[in-house]
Amino acid sequence: MVYSALLLGALAAAPAFGQTFRRTAACPKLGCVFPPDQTDFIAGQTFDLRIEVQAPVNGSEAYNNGQVDENFSVKIGGEGGELVDIAQFFGLSDPKLEKYNFTYYEDLFAEDAHAPTPVNVAAKSYRNLQLHTPGTYELVLTYNNGDTTKATWTVADLAEQKKAKNVIFFVGDGMAGSMLSAARLLGHKTINGKYQSKLKLDEAPGYGSQMTHSLDSFITDSANSASALFSGKKMTVNGLNAYTVRFAIRFKISKQPADDRASTGVSLVDSQPSLTLSSSTGKAFGDPKVETIFEMFRRIEGGQVGIVSKAYIADATPAASQRSQYTAVIEQYLTGVAGNYSWFPWEGVDLLFGGGAENFLPGPGNNNVSQFDRWASEGYQVGYTKTELEAFDNAQRALAIFTRGNISTWLDQNIYTDLLDLAITPQGERGARDQPGLKDMTLKAIDILHTRAKERNTGFMLMSEAALIDKEMHVLDIDRALGEVLELDDTVRATLKHLEEIGELEDTLIVVTADHGHGFDVFGSADTKYLQQQESDRAKRNAIGTYQNSGLSAYQVPQDVLATNHTIFDSPQGEGFPVTWDPRYTIAHGWAAFPDHREDFEVNTDHERLPAVKNTTGYFFNPEDNQRGFAMTGNLGTGEGQGVDVPVYAFGPGHEYFRGVMNSPDLAFKVALALDLGKSSNVTASYKK
Amino acid sequence: MVYSALLLGALAAAPAFGQTFRRTAACPKLGCVFPPDQTDFIAGQTFDLRIEVQAPVNGSEAYNNGQVDENFSVKIGGEGGELVDIAQFFGLSDPKLEKYNFTYYEDLFAEDAHAPTPVNVAAKSYRNLQLHTPGTYELVLTYNNGDTTKATWTVADLAEQKKAKNVIFFVGDGMAGSMLSAARLLGHKTINGKYQSKLKLDEAPGYGSQMTHSLDSFITDSANSASALFSGKKMTVNGLNAYTVRFAIRFKISKQPADDRASTGVSLVDSQPSLTLSSSTGKAFGDPKVETIFEMFRRIEGGQVGIVSKAYIADATPAASQRSQYTAVIEQYLTGVAGNYSWFPWEGVDLLFGGGAENFLPGPGNNNVSQFDRWASEGYQVGYTKTELEAFDNAQRALAIFTRGNISTWLDQNIYTDLLDLAITPQGERGARDQPGLKDMTLKAIDILHTRAKERNTGFMLMSEAALIDKEMHVLDIDRALGEVLELDDTVRATLKHLEEIGELEDTLIVVTADHGHGFDVFGSADTKYLQQQESDRAKRNAIGTYQNSGLSAYQVPQDVLATNHTIFDSPQGEGFPVTWDPRYTIAHGWAAFPDHREDFEVNTDHERLPAVKNTTGYFFNPEDNQRGFAMTGNLGTGEGQGVDVPVYAFGPGHEYFRGVMNSPDLAFKVALALDLGKSSNVTASYKK
Repeated sequence: MVYSALLLGALAAAPAFGQTFRRTAACPKLGCVFPPDQTDFIAGQTFDLRIEVQAPVNGSEAYNNGQVDENFSVKIGGEGGELVDIAQFFGLSDPKLEKYNFTYYEDLFAEDAHAPTPVNVAAKSYRNLQLHTPGTYELVLTYNNGDTTKATWTVADLAEQKKAKNVIFFVGDGMAGSMLSAARLLGHKTINGKYQSKLKLDEAPGYGSQMTHSLDSFITDSANSASALFSGKKMTVNGLNAYTVRFAIRFKISKQPADDRASTGVSLVDSQPSLTLSSSTGKAFGDPKVETIFEMFRRIEGGQVGIVSKAYIADATPAASQRSQYTAVIEQYLTGVAGNYSWFPWEGVDLLFGGGAENFLPGPGNNNVSQFDRWASEGYQVGYTKTELEAFDNAQRALAIFTRGNISTWLDQNIYTDLLDLAITPQGERGARDQPGLKDMTLKAIDILHTRAKERNTGFMLMSEAALIDKEMHVLDIDRALGEVLELDDTVRATLKHLEEIGELEDTLIVVTADHGHGFDVFGSADTKYLQQQESDRAKRNAIGTYQNSGLSAYQVPQDVLATNHTIFDSPQGEGFPVTWDPRYTIAHGWAAFPDHREDFEVNTDHERLPAVKNTTGYFFNPEDNQRGFAMTGNLGTGEGQGVDVPVYAFGPGHEYFRGVMNSPDLAFKVALALDLGKSSNVTASYKK
Repeated sequence: MVYSALLLGALAAAPAFGQTFRRTAACPKLGCVFPPDQTDFIAGQTFDLRIEVQAPVNGSEAYNNGQVDENFSVKIGGEGGELVDIAQFFGLSDPKLEKYNFTYYEDLFAEDAHAPTPVNVAAKSYRNLQLHTPGTYELVLTYNNGDTTKATWTVADLAEQKKAKNVIFFVGDGMAGSMLSAARLLGHKTINGKYQSKLKLDEAPGYGSQMTHSLDSFITDSANSASALFSGKKMTVNGLNAYTVRFAIRFKISKQPADDRASTGVSLVDSQPSLTLSSSTGKAFGDPKVETIFEMFRRIEGGQVGIVSKAYIADATPAASQRSQYTAVIEQYLTGVAGNYSWFPWEGVDLLFGGGAENFLPGPGNNNVSQFDRWASEGYQVGYTKTELEAFDNAQRALAIFTRGNISTWLDQNIYTDLLDLAITPQGERGARDQPGLKDMTLKAIDILHTRAKERNTGFMLMSEAALIDKEMHVLDIDRALGEVLELDDTVRATLKHLEEIGELEDTLIVVTADHGHGFDVFGSADTKYLQQQESDRAKRNAIGTYQNSGLSAYQVPQDVLATNHTIFDSPQGEGFPVTWDPRYTIAHGWAAFPDHREDFEVNTDHERLPAVKNTTGYFFNPEDNQRGFAMTGNLGTGEGQGVDVPVYAFGPGHEYFRGVMNSPDLAFKVALALDLGKSSNVTASYKK
């Protein structure tokens, strides 16, 4: 369809009702305040304030021919009190005015017509602020001859008592509640409607759910949602504990798959998405940042902090300003963001275990610096294998990176181990067989953190991420995804046991949640033998049994035994795992959003799944994938989103805070409450490396 | 594909690994006990025991040429005690031996080849039993020269105190957690990531989830799952508080759509599925029954009991032995199941409000009896309109049936009201405009129950079902389904308020849950204007915005206002409903299981949706449905199932019992605990009509 210039002119002149793209997230007027209206703070939580005044050159919000007002003012005051100049309020000198510009499209029609709207911006950043007195604050930005943008902020009450000394925060990336139902079905057996064993998560005394939407969109991604969980602030998509206000720039990133190496149809050894920020302040970490609960814990208590993930460690959830800035994220783990501007010193994480050696190796992207060498020179033990991990001195800080990209899935590490021949070592060789699982990394992390915390009389915080759940869901590889869910549950079980052994169970709050979900469900069973023997797509679909014809889980009996058999068969991988991964009767399952693909409901034993491949116009059926399956035309070209609330599980002191329906930022506040992180003055403790 | 007789012979002779069809649910050996092993009972809960010994004539379990053992014995005893003959234990005379036979297919190959397995059965039913002493019991069935089938039963501990006088149990049929996320998105507005108002359910102090699987399959339906919620026993699919053991017979029903008038592709004015039981004991309510908590409450306290549903009232959830036996179910509301055999007398529900007049009218299916006349002669007020409902005397029992089939959806009653011209009155005329909503029915039900309970110094129990959620989900009519969810939430809000007004809030436990879920999710927004103007299916899919491009809910602003606007606009339907139902940017959504259909992401304003229609080989695209949409080939021929855990919300005394991850039968036990229904002797109270 072709649009005339006349029609486009009309579109541009009329009020734009577009919402696919927005000028700037969380800024409906031309004056923007970040953190925005209705932000909540932990008392004493450090943050940056960014003020922008924008002037679109054309389009529905065109202002003053794009001439931007540089003479804006910002005032703030406590509830009911007098408003004073922001710099005066915080005892700062007024920062330098920044100017830049960007462009965006008002809607899809404008994009098709390549008719962007340029926007000029004047901005100021106020760095390293804290609010200590609980209550509400009013901020008023005045611009454009009297227009105002107001923000009411609330500082949460202080804790009445410190409940927990340590916190372990598990994140199942993309782990919807429906996946836990499915994982239970694979890993545990029912007899007459009763599970004979359950997920460890099913036993959590604290149980709730949380809403994952972002600051300015109802679908989130892993970066933004991790920020909400760890800083207590909803961010924009791709924002990592920082308000990445240049929405229009990031829009272009969204045309790349959101989870680069595992997104639907992207080769698993693909390169990173290219991110080019065109604005003058577009450097990494230039955006207004908010202190995470991990940073607060370190600053206030000098506590031990560890990060474990099965993904390449520079990926979204473990990191803390803008996603996809891999080298910068890694450097930040070591030295914080102090380099860019005045911020609290960061003495480095106590441990970092994961994949993604490619971001640590010297290359043009990071000035040919080996991050392995850098970390070693800072006194870190450095390891590349599970064997080296286990040999680490528990009293010393440690970096361990086991693979070039993501760590191999639980399924490949434990069942289809021939696939490890394809896994790439940090050094770039095929055959990375000496890899740890999430449980290995987590338990070793606890040992190091506990040993070091005990010596220093502090507590510890650990973030452990089952990161591959999401990556496997994006490629519709359900068996690998559910293997990761079961591995997470097994890791939580082992963690509780290990904490009891080392005497820390009573003092440790454990929180398990997801950063977002996936629209996924099991809706029956599939007789794969029958499916394979049918010739038409239509006939293959008759292999699906729903309702009573779904039967019982065939994953909990050997292949030649009926699922109705009441015998409890042991899994070779221990409690909570399937007895077999390729029964004749598998789970029939589906997604709410997916690309074109073929479905055969069988485990992929020879390779990880790749349902769709890209050609010049988008993602289509991969002719190599599931050749015996039936075709499904999708509803998505290139990716997948998710909008469902996700479950929250909590064990240990303070678990009772994590009950009922929550919003994602609430979790950071509840952790802060349990740890007593809110402070009525600027508290800093020394951290001993 | 053609199978030779030889191959079929081989299939029949080899061990069968089929599980699509089973010989009998929850009976892996040839001796069956219902209630089966691992059943839990409320102390004093009445139940039937059914024993079957089966002899397959051929197939993998062929026994003695199909000659069945008629000389089986059944013994029972308390934990560690001596086992005694079952009739002696319960002080009964030994029941008459029943004999019947049925056939089933061992798997899909056998079905395609029309090669059934006949099974001969000898059976005994022991009726009207109770176990009063908490603890475990052992039952042993001995048959076939020494084979045994054992069952261990547990009677739950008695309550320490009575917490609640009244219980209101809301069921959202098919209401998955993801639908609540979606309903919140339509009915409530976010500003900067914070909901400015929330679902009433979001505020529930008791919050958990429950597993919905059935006794012998991992996918349930509404009948079986309602049984679990109300009797505390998992049943087979289609079983309503009764073990419908003849699985092989019911298999044929499953070839009918499970939810007859609203199933995918079935005409909304279609007739009921035909159910023909071929066995000698196949009469309705012949199956072994279990007393529900409603029946216990009436028997023990003489309490008031009401049932409200938006579906035709003889449908699954409200009713209490086998689904689809419509006339029998209605008769049962009035007179119980006493007619068939010795069971407690049932003096009739106090009120029954819903749709489905067709099952009340005289016809060949019910001996030409008008149930309206029958109920009126029993002293019930009878009404057919909302006006008549509101005029009911609160002191008298009442029957109100408002439509021929289901009551109209909230969307049609409130927004697209022209569609009420098509709604059929109980008398069979088009234009049923004087219909109540769920809130109207529920509040009136509370008034009647409360008035009558107060006069009699008893409590009351009400079951109120948002029954059309599921029916609209089956036809992929998401707007109507979410309208029903919002109506349920609004009804809960109004119920809490009304209970406070009449002074019953402190004494009333409110539980809200679903009987099962749907694999459904919102994964982005759709620019419907853009979608309509694209010509190819492929290009239409580009109208979907995911992640940050999803934007904010456009249902909370008028059509010409951007969703980013921070103004709170009032909905014409009040708090918690959309401002507009047909914004340009709608929710992009999908299902895990669906038939072939077209998707345009627009509300159907002219008719309820019908995505697929049946031809001789199954369900295909309905050429009339969503003509501007893009095509999606499905993964199901005729229906849809669901396997996800569903949320549980509780308010009022005893709400704390409903926290964490539960199994569906647990809910009946928790209600019994709050009401103190467990009794150590046979308690009966008189009920005054």
